[in-house]
Amino acid sequence: MASGDIEGLLEAVDLQIDLSSAGSDNDARFHMGDGTLEISMRLHALNRARLCKAFRAIISDEDGDLIILEGGKSRCRDATDHEELFRQESFFHWCFGVKEPDCMGVIEPHTGKARLFVPRLPIEYETWMGHILTREEWRTMYAVNEVLYLDEISSFIGMRTSLFFPKGVNTDSGVEHPVPVIEDVVSSRTEKEFVELFELLSELRMVKTEMELDVMRYSAAVSSAAHVEIMQKIRPGMTEYQMESLFQHYCYSKGGCRYTSYTCICASGSNGATLHYGHAAAANASTIQDGSICLFDMGTEYHCYGSDITCSFPANGRFTDDQEMIYEAVLASQRAVFEKVRPGVSWPDMHVLAERTILEKLIAGGLLVGDVDEMLEARLGAVFMPHGLGHTLGIDTHDVGGMLSGHPKRDSRPGLKSLRMTRTLRKHMVVTVEPGIYFNPALIEKARNDPILSKYLRMEEIDRFRTFGGVRLEDDIVITSDGYENLTKVPRNVADIENVMAGAAWDSTP
Amino acid sequence: MASGDIEGLLEAVDLQIDLSSAGSDNDARFHMGDGTLEISMRLHALNRARLCKAFRAIISDEDGDLIILEGGKSRCRDATDHEELFRQESFFHWCFGVKEPDCMGVIEPHTGKARLFVPRLPIEYETWMGHILTREEWRTMYAVNEVLYLDEISSFIGMRTSLFFPKGVNTDSGVEHPVPVIEDVVSSRTEKEFVELFELLSELRMVKTEMELDVMRYSAAVSSAAHVEIMQKIRPGMTEYQMESLFQHYCYSKGGCRYTSYTCICASGSNGATLHYGHAAAANASTIQDGSICLFDMGTEYHCYGSDITCSFPANGRFTDDQEMIYEAVLASQRAVFEKVRPGVSWPDMHVLAERTILEKLIAGGLLVGDVDEMLEARLGAVFMPHGLGHTLGIDTHDVGGMLSGHPKRDSRPGLKSLRMTRTLRKHMVVTVEPGIYFNPALIEKARNDPILSKYLRMEEIDRFRTFGGVRLEDDIVITSDGYENLTKVPRNVADIENVMAGAAWDSTP
Repeated sequence: MASGDIEGLLEAVDLQIDLSSAGSDNDARFHMGDGTLEISMRLHALNRARLCKAFRAIISDEDGDLIILEGGKSRCRDATDHEELFRQESFFHWCFGVKEPDCMGVIEPHTGKARLFVPRLPIEYETWMGHILTREEWRTMYAVNEVLYLDEISSFIGMRTSLFFPKGVNTDSGVEHPVPVIEDVVSSRTEKEFVELFELLSELRMVKTEMELDVMRYSAAVSSAAHVEIMQKIRPGMTEYQMESLFQHYCYSKGGCRYTSYTCICASGSNGATLHYGHAAAANASTIQDGSICLFDMGTEYHCYGSDITCSFPANGRFTDDQEMIYEAVLASQRAVFEKVRPGVSWPDMHVLAERTILEKLIAGGLLVGDVDEMLEARLGAVFMPHGLGHTLGIDTHDVGGMLSGHPKRDSRPGLKSLRMTRTLRKHMVVTVEPGIYFNPALIEKARNDPILSKYLRMEEIDRFRTFGGVRLEDDIVITSDGYENLTKVPRNVADIENVMAGAAWDSTP
Repeated sequence: MASGDIEGLLEAVDLQIDLSSAGSDNDARFHMGDGTLEISMRLHALNRARLCKAFRAIISDEDGDLIILEGGKSRCRDATDHEELFRQESFFHWCFGVKEPDCMGVIEPHTGKARLFVPRLPIEYETWMGHILTREEWRTMYAVNEVLYLDEISSFIGMRTSLFFPKGVNTDSGVEHPVPVIEDVVSSRTEKEFVELFELLSELRMVKTEMELDVMRYSAAVSSAAHVEIMQKIRPGMTEYQMESLFQHYCYSKGGCRYTSYTCICASGSNGATLHYGHAAAANASTIQDGSICLFDMGTEYHCYGSDITCSFPANGRFTDDQEMIYEAVLASQRAVFEKVRPGVSWPDMHVLAERTILEKLIAGGLLVGDVDEMLEARLGAVFMPHGLGHTLGIDTHDVGGMLSGHPKRDSRPGLKSLRMTRTLRKHMVVTVEPGIYFNPALIEKARNDPILSKYLRMEEIDRFRTFGGVRLEDDIVITSDGYENLTKVPRNVADIENVMAGAAWDSTP
């Protein structure tokens, strides 16, 4: 079954469910104390209700079907006993909202019943790790129908052969979602049907419910406020990682957000031209220079729902003319996209629109010369913006659903080939809109040596930007029925940024 | 070969090497900017020199031998493209100090030559991840003899069959150190010899050089200062995770320490009775109550060399009589051990000494009644201190070398069975000394129902401590030729703690 079909069917299914509430009247909640968001476990009950309804409509309506999901596993680093801080596997989290490792979940799509299978913990757990939850405590905490022990799953499944495990490959990393091995249990279902469940879950995860959006509004607001904190505290002479540290501290201590959505990118000056700067081999360790521009791409997550925000601003709080020119070009590009996004719009079209705007502004700024349509055709935009315009966002930062089967294949041309989403927009998708302009020496050198691209480049002007780095502006938006809602609450105008950096107050609440 | 033999031979080998310097005159350094420690790559050259010398003396002295180590691998979380922040595998780090993932290293023990094999990165790496190092840049950065690409390792190894891979099992987690698969290369060496190399490396890692100790002094000093910062900023009504966040922020922003050595344990009140509180299922999320005692076990690492420090103090800055009584009992226990530690002392003996002191103090405090020797025999101490006295510390928090073959087996009795080290102390081992007293309801209830243990318990007094939690004091020490050096620089006297919490200055520099 093609995902295009799923999309239509799901819309029909969602219309039959009240997306703002769920069947469970349980009062179970997750939160991190005073001032943090309280999340009802009804969020996950609703996710499961959507899954069951769609499953029956699209995959199978046989009594006795079971959907089986495996939670994330606790893990040691290499051959040590260093236990990594656990973060739940994303599909499992979407279904159950369980923070503990080493669980499994079974859903009966015919009845909607949800069962958790949890480890039977040794008595020593009480001494080392904490209270051993009773099955009733588990059941109450996560508002499921029943809780059993993992060692009971084989006998629970018994002779049923209609078992559905999601099976598929992450379209960004190529990593395969594993099918769990359950002793003594063999499914009679074919691989094709596993893939269908994977794609169905991906499609469902991509379209957020109101309850999920509330969590994402919270994550984005916390991240926004942390970015503002950094704008107000940054000074030339500090190191980049001090800003990463401040971001994490703000999100955790003020928002209860223990995990970042991804490794922080705190790039100053020429480091900004490296798109995924900040990893272990390029570790945010430079000193921030007076006169340089900062490109800080950082987002936090709450209850595993992420945010992904990039701010760019001058380290010393005042834009130079060149910095302002590049900044305004990127801002114009982002705004051009905002004017067009709504359900039904093609995401690759938005990418090209962003590119077009950037090229026009670089012509106006004197860095390029020539015809914009020709430049687009020659893929000149990818010299300055080598990445895609944006991606789906949710429980994963590069969330699932952007490239399911049945949608257009990825374009192989520069820039477009980096898009993580090839489809049209749907209501309640959350996507990032993150145009950027970078002066990457290797890419510019390559273009300068290209007989077609070189004629558009005014190298005598571009040379001035050799160590500039880059500007990216990244907002997280929800597609609404007639446009979008922006979850990101940071200053974007040049004047607002300069005022905030000079100490003016800024309100980041949703 | 038994590790007891390794120990003696290694001592002879180390005597032949100047442990305070290394052969390489290269000036390669790691540091994280102004105010952070500069580490010479000679540290790793010296580690390799020790390895080669010991290898030739103990395992094989054939020309053509190769020691092969595999570095840690970059990894995505589950089936996503979320790249986890990379941290180098510990054996590889000890040999090479390389921060990049996906490398291998080959050492010729006969010549001492060290070669790094690095990934041949695609040109796109420049755009997304940063500058692609030339082989010469790699060589200079890590002060090795030669750098080749990973795809050259098979041909480099060629027909040599004397290949030694470390192979062994971590004695704390039971996780096996993997032997890398290199295409077209088969070693003729037997498994026994792989294990010898694993044990040799473990023994070498356990005994630190002066250069390694300098790094550990730095990590411990940064962690100490962060603990002091928390003592000064904590207030009842805050949440535990705010203290975790503050600790991490302090270590990273002031010390350039990006990684904690382990997940922070920020336990207040009764949470302190859970020894490994703070993990995802017990997530430092309680509000800190006025009148409760805090048990904060947190350590940072720098260049992968860790620290592991526990401070206990009253949330409101003033000890109650009961808190002071328990605190002084633990402090006396730690000091009793400090008076005895030196090379040749049995670690299990130190554990029993710590227990004895605790039991004596609990008798004096009116919580226990009876004869201390009888109590020790009955293992009553493990009711109040269920964990071991301490463990080796280094590139791993529970560092290697504590339980190698040839040393006494682990005692199976309560308390002693939790010791991660059964051997005698050696000069330049780094160990934690971390006695504690905990009021764990499950353990006390079990003891109360035990016909032998119950007669020592004065339950009418112990009941008062039902929600007390626990006190642990954990210092990191180096064994010196006639005693120890304490790397931990935090206030330990009751008076000092109360003064620091009231705002007095404290110097944590080494």
